[in-house]
Amino acid sequence: MFDHRKYRRFETVRLKDRTWPDNEINKAPDWCSVDLRDGNQALINPMSVEQKTRMFTLLVKLGFKEIEVGFPSASKPDYDFVRKLVDENLIPDDVSIQVLTQAREELIKKTFDALGGVKKANVHVYNSTSVVQREQVFGMDKDEIKGIAVQGAKWVRDYAKQHPDTQWEFQYSPESYTGTEMDFAVEVCDAVIAEWQPENGQKVVINLPSTVEMSTPNVFADQVEYFCRKLKQRDQVRISLHTHNDRGCAVAAAELGVMAGADRVEGTLMGNGERTGNMDIVTMGMNLYSQGIDPELDFSDIKEIIEVVESCNEIPVSVRHPWAGELVYTAFSGSHQDAIRKSVNYHKEHNQEHWDVAYLPIDPRDISREYEAVVRINSQSGKGGVALVLERDYGIELPKWMHVPLSKVVQSAAEQQGVEVSPEVIYTLYQKHFVEVADAWTMTRYDLHTDEQQVSARFQIGDAEFSGQGAGALEALKDALSNHYQCQFEVTQFDEHAIGSGTDAKAQATVAVEVDGATEYAVAISEDTSSAALQAMLTAFGRHAVAEQRISA
Amino acid sequence: MFDHRKYRRFETVRLKDRTWPDNEINKAPDWCSVDLRDGNQALINPMSVEQKTRMFTLLVKLGFKEIEVGFPSASKPDYDFVRKLVDENLIPDDVSIQVLTQAREELIKKTFDALGGVKKANVHVYNSTSVVQREQVFGMDKDEIKGIAVQGAKWVRDYAKQHPDTQWEFQYSPESYTGTEMDFAVEVCDAVIAEWQPENGQKVVINLPSTVEMSTPNVFADQVEYFCRKLKQRDQVRISLHTHNDRGCAVAAAELGVMAGADRVEGTLMGNGERTGNMDIVTMGMNLYSQGIDPELDFSDIKEIIEVVESCNEIPVSVRHPWAGELVYTAFSGSHQDAIRKSVNYHKEHNQEHWDVAYLPIDPRDISREYEAVVRINSQSGKGGVALVLERDYGIELPKWMHVPLSKVVQSAAEQQGVEVSPEVIYTLYQKHFVEVADAWTMTRYDLHTDEQQVSARFQIGDAEFSGQGAGALEALKDALSNHYQCQFEVTQFDEHAIGSGTDAKAQATVAVEVDGATEYAVAISEDTSSAALQAMLTAFGRHAVAEQRISA
Repeated sequence: MFDHRKYRRFETVRLKDRTWPDNEINKAPDWCSVDLRDGNQALINPMSVEQKTRMFTLLVKLGFKEIEVGFPSASKPDYDFVRKLVDENLIPDDVSIQVLTQAREELIKKTFDALGGVKKANVHVYNSTSVVQREQVFGMDKDEIKGIAVQGAKWVRDYAKQHPDTQWEFQYSPESYTGTEMDFAVEVCDAVIAEWQPENGQKVVINLPSTVEMSTPNVFADQVEYFCRKLKQRDQVRISLHTHNDRGCAVAAAELGVMAGADRVEGTLMGNGERTGNMDIVTMGMNLYSQGIDPELDFSDIKEIIEVVESCNEIPVSVRHPWAGELVYTAFSGSHQDAIRKSVNYHKEHNQEHWDVAYLPIDPRDISREYEAVVRINSQSGKGGVALVLERDYGIELPKWMHVPLSKVVQSAAEQQGVEVSPEVIYTLYQKHFVEVADAWTMTRYDLHTDEQQVSARFQIGDAEFSGQGAGALEALKDALSNHYQCQFEVTQFDEHAIGSGTDAKAQATVAVEVDGATEYAVAISEDTSSAALQAMLTAFGRHAVAEQRISA
Repeated sequence: MFDHRKYRRFETVRLKDRTWPDNEINKAPDWCSVDLRDGNQALINPMSVEQKTRMFTLLVKLGFKEIEVGFPSASKPDYDFVRKLVDENLIPDDVSIQVLTQAREELIKKTFDALGGVKKANVHVYNSTSVVQREQVFGMDKDEIKGIAVQGAKWVRDYAKQHPDTQWEFQYSPESYTGTEMDFAVEVCDAVIAEWQPENGQKVVINLPSTVEMSTPNVFADQVEYFCRKLKQRDQVRISLHTHNDRGCAVAAAELGVMAGADRVEGTLMGNGERTGNMDIVTMGMNLYSQGIDPELDFSDIKEIIEVVESCNEIPVSVRHPWAGELVYTAFSGSHQDAIRKSVNYHKEHNQEHWDVAYLPIDPRDISREYEAVVRINSQSGKGGVALVLERDYGIELPKWMHVPLSKVVQSAAEQQGVEVSPEVIYTLYQKHFVEVADAWTMTRYDLHTDEQQVSARFQIGDAEFSGQGAGALEALKDALSNHYQCQFEVTQFDEHAIGSGTDAKAQATVAVEVDGATEYAVAISEDTSSAALQAMLTAFGRHAVAEQRISA
């Protein structure tokens, strides 16, 4: 039954003297990928060793220096995978692998077996500390729960001593941290740290999981700031965050948590993970990037990232996924297309040092996306977008006054079809409505004679011959047509420009004509500028004549 | 090229005396769906009138009182759809439809044409005010941009007067608000409000779009609090938010923005919208719900919502989508499955008033999800989960000491196959490994004679007859078998319970036996409690004998 009264507001510590909202993130946190843990635990079909290897290789390539590789004491594939990494020497010297274990001796022992011979590793031990887990799942009081953590810490320390050649780092998580009383979380972590004695040079990570996201992200930030203030040996500890996306705010929680004092962020590529997933490192990394901060990860080949993630997780990346989705650099609406076009041009013309383009927070080419995808056309698109597609994909530049008639033709087709209009269809529509001309309206020959600033001309049009006079060639053709067909005829717009250069150059003429009050548009291309101009005019006139049934096409 | 130095930090107003982090959301904001605007503008294939009608019908059913229905002056399908809603009387009396228009007279005039005859409507006029848009797109100074807004406001007011029977509400957006100097945004909005004179009873909405998400959500909240403080006629205005998800924080921005003073939130179902989408009203609504706050929208049939959204937008809802995705109430890992099972039981046994279950922020049944999906089994799953599936789907209850042997069999199969293990396969494995028995080990008859607390028994097992003595029937069978096969034989675990009740009840016996140091498990069911117990023991023994090649099956 849908009844909100079954639930209660989440209550936790709230700081009155918080400082985090005044902070800004000025550098990337230490990233730790957990794609090979949570991704695995929460996939319908867990990754095979081959898939794990593919993911691990990608993570190394992107620049991760800390990579969690699984839970080797609980899963045979994870165990085999860790052994493979170590035995086949697949871990670069500057990369530390991390493994997860519960605080039970046989599991810790097996964990160290799995890691035997590794150069650098982080052993991450955890137990649940929240009220719900203590009371309902374990039936234990606070001291007993703290005892599990401390005993786990001891075992980790003692087994590590048996492998002195490895550079160990220890990590502890009070799992379900967000649901734990903050002072108790601090107490447990202080006790664990006391066992590990980081003052002797042994680094320690304390990871604060938002195992289930329970509040707005500012409340999580309060929890993190409170924790950092209270922890006894704060200076010897890296504070890590592991946020989940139950309320859709995992990235925000990690960002505000870093502002609140965290040093390290665990997450996954594209946010896979249990239930709603972990925070997405691509999103947070690109958020930093777009603000001029080095993410210390290389997302330049986003297509490869998507491909590996999709093939390992068997979950598609949404077309709207921040920074990465197929549609996020795409504008369908006319005003957006127009603004993008203008500000990209402004950026180029002013040779601007910093990117500042409407609707495009970054240059899509930075992450191997092309401009091609930026403008796509459907019935919501405006005139600028359609013209942009013709220019971009076919090199056809049209004068601005042609944008409206072209767009009308395309929009009408888009509305009839109800689907996106491809560049090919736009080109076809353009050709059909403005360029193609029946033989009857094709000029095959012209003779122009100039005499005292007066042009006399003869035109072979289809099978017929016409003659006319005027101040120029166009006016002579106008004279010929208006006399022959007995109509009011004006050229209202005219544009001609070269296509290409040198001896191969052609001329493209675009005209708007008004015949008996109706406007027609046409484009013609020729190696000869006069031919192009005359034919464009003739094509436009012919269109009107056909429409008015003055003559059949 | 992937180079963060091309970008700059986003600079805007930062409050030192902000109050929003101390606030909490205590009631639902006024919701406005923009599924039929942005959804439409940003879809590869825009919605048809039929799809729009389907979406509108759903939005009304969910309880939306404000529904944006399109941009009728710019799109013929939108115009037709608005006319259809009005002409066919499809708008409930308590629902206000909202339409978008630019601040141009011909568009405003057409907008009012589209709305002719409607009972309640909100005319939403906007123009771009950001630095980038002013300088690069429009080439206008601040006064000119403000002039567009004020002139648009006048036209809206004047055309509305021509339709006195409609209950009008006016709305203005300084589009690209986040990229606008805050004081200028306030200045423009003050000028628009002055035109509309809300003190005369005319309500006004000022909508603050995060047209492109440019900062962490706390910075957006600072912007909203600043704006609310500075606006002259704050009391006569509803402040609305329209956040986008470029940095993955649209929901967080809306939540923190409401804490900072906003009254109203625009968004879409499942977060569709331009580029990365708008904020998702389902997520923010369910976030409120899970905290005991009435969302004032009914999400109880989440399956229907997903179905309509997917069919209208042609974009699938991710399996990890907060609150709605297929996998968000599913646990694969053993410890999570175990914790969920224990705390759901605790919840039931203690008849708790409020929901407090590990890993499940709400009861999935509230939104028409079943518990069935909660536990799914793959190689990462533990013993509790497998037993839970057998009990849930087949009604088979096993004693706790059977969970480990059962789980081992299933996990081994899961690791070999590398994919999820269905309940059917679990059942088959259970039957094969613990229940099925060859004829040679099937007891077809037994005779028990009790004399002075000593049982003498004869057993017909396959084709052979055995006899033995003991303190009970089981001991007599053990005696018979161990003598005949010359082995050490102990029953180490025994459990028997009734299945069903009354005359149809059967008995299920589960045993663990140790034969020459090896442990075997078996289950048998019979209408007779003695038969069940004896057969279970015999099945287990037979399994050992076959394994040891003492006898062929």
